[in-house]
Amino acid sequence: MRQRNVKNKEEIINNSKYYIENPLEFRGKWNEVFQNSHPIMIEIGTGKGNFIIENAKKHKEINYIGIEKNDSILALALKKIPEGISNLRMLKFDAFFIDKLFFNEVSLIYLNFSDPWPKKRHEKRRLTSLNFLKKYEIISKDKVNISMKTDNKDLFSYSILMLNNNDYKFSLLTFDLENYKDIENIKTEYEEKFTKLNSSIYLVIATKMKNK
Amino acid sequence: MRQRNVKNKEEIINNSKYYIENPLEFRGKWNEVFQNSHPIMIEIGTGKGNFIIENAKKHKEINYIGIEKNDSILALALKKIPEGISNLRMLKFDAFFIDKLFFNEVSLIYLNFSDPWPKKRHEKRRLTSLNFLKKYEIISKDKVNISMKTDNKDLFSYSILMLNNNDYKFSLLTFDLENYKDIENIKTEYEEKFTKLNSSIYLVIATKMKNK
Repeated sequence: MRQRNVKNKEEIINNSKYYIENPLEFRGKWNEVFQNSHPIMIEIGTGKGNFIIENAKKHKEINYIGIEKNDSILALALKKIPEGISNLRMLKFDAFFIDKLFFNEVSLIYLNFSDPWPKKRHEKRRLTSLNFLKKYEIISKDKVNISMKTDNKDLFSYSILMLNNNDYKFSLLTFDLENYKDIENIKTEYEEKFTKLNSSIYLVIATKMKNK
Repeated sequence: MRQRNVKNKEEIINNSKYYIENPLEFRGKWNEVFQNSHPIMIEIGTGKGNFIIENAKKHKEINYIGIEKNDSILALALKKIPEGISNLRMLKFDAFFIDKLFFNEVSLIYLNFSDPWPKKRHEKRRLTSLNFLKKYEIISKDKVNISMKTDNKDLFSYSILMLNNNDYKFSLLTFDLENYKDIENIKTEYEEKFTKLNSSIYLVIATKMKNK
């Protein structure tokens, strides 16, 4: 997602109590940040934040961490967080090194409308490439749980193939999330826009027991 | 697929040398019919026959069996087969009992544009329901190979979920077969028609080792 430069972004970021400046310090002990032992769920590429903020408001018994590498976008997300949301933090970080950020502690990984990186030579940047699936095993607790939604059918079919080939089991799969009942769907800003254009939204929830 | 009654269908069927009248007799010994030990591939719901006839012409080293329960459609398919195709047979049979027809001998199962049976109460009639997956294990040789194509996204997402949950590994998956390179795609009559209407065609090829 392209984003124009946000004025005062550094000020917004540094003054936000939801922002974690030195996240690498907490690897393996993120529960200390939240001062409880609730499950930790992360969103890689959290964008303007609607998805994770609304989740944090609804599910107080879960700790959420949003990861975004673009600081203009991160500033927009941080500005949106209302007062008193104790179960949410945001970081500026490149997910390529996510295994340096968490260890045996993540309960669910949200991948929402990730960059499809369509060129074959960029495959390892796709968030469901083997490269990333290996990192998810390092950061996850006893099993790896991934919830992925996208409007990009090539990224989706690639992801389904990769997850299947790497022993993930799908618990939910739809090619038409907009009309899928029986699931709480909190939309991202991007999704809100593209659903209006009648794009199909694909969703998969996949789980793998960690290799011991 | 609805089909008007075909005149002389019984005559066409009974006079065709490609038609097998008492198929249950050959369970476990279909290679005797072909008088060789080449792999046997079947198409469930063979429709008007284009897919399996063209395959049989191209791949002489494979034996093909088309299964169709509607005798008007079967007659149309039989009429289309040219002279001298020794590696093809057709049957009138309800696939619901396919495990009575083959035993440990099928190398690949083609499911092309199968009836989606959208109502939940008809789920067990879908050709990728657990009900059918169990039968495929009985009829298949050492592993179950399924090649499925459809333009029905609900049937496709259901099938992907069922195959994944039942330990199938996908070797190929596309949501856009028409634009997929590197695969020989012989079209069915139905596909020919719907591709022209710009429908997406979905394909999955999935494999499972048989439980010993």
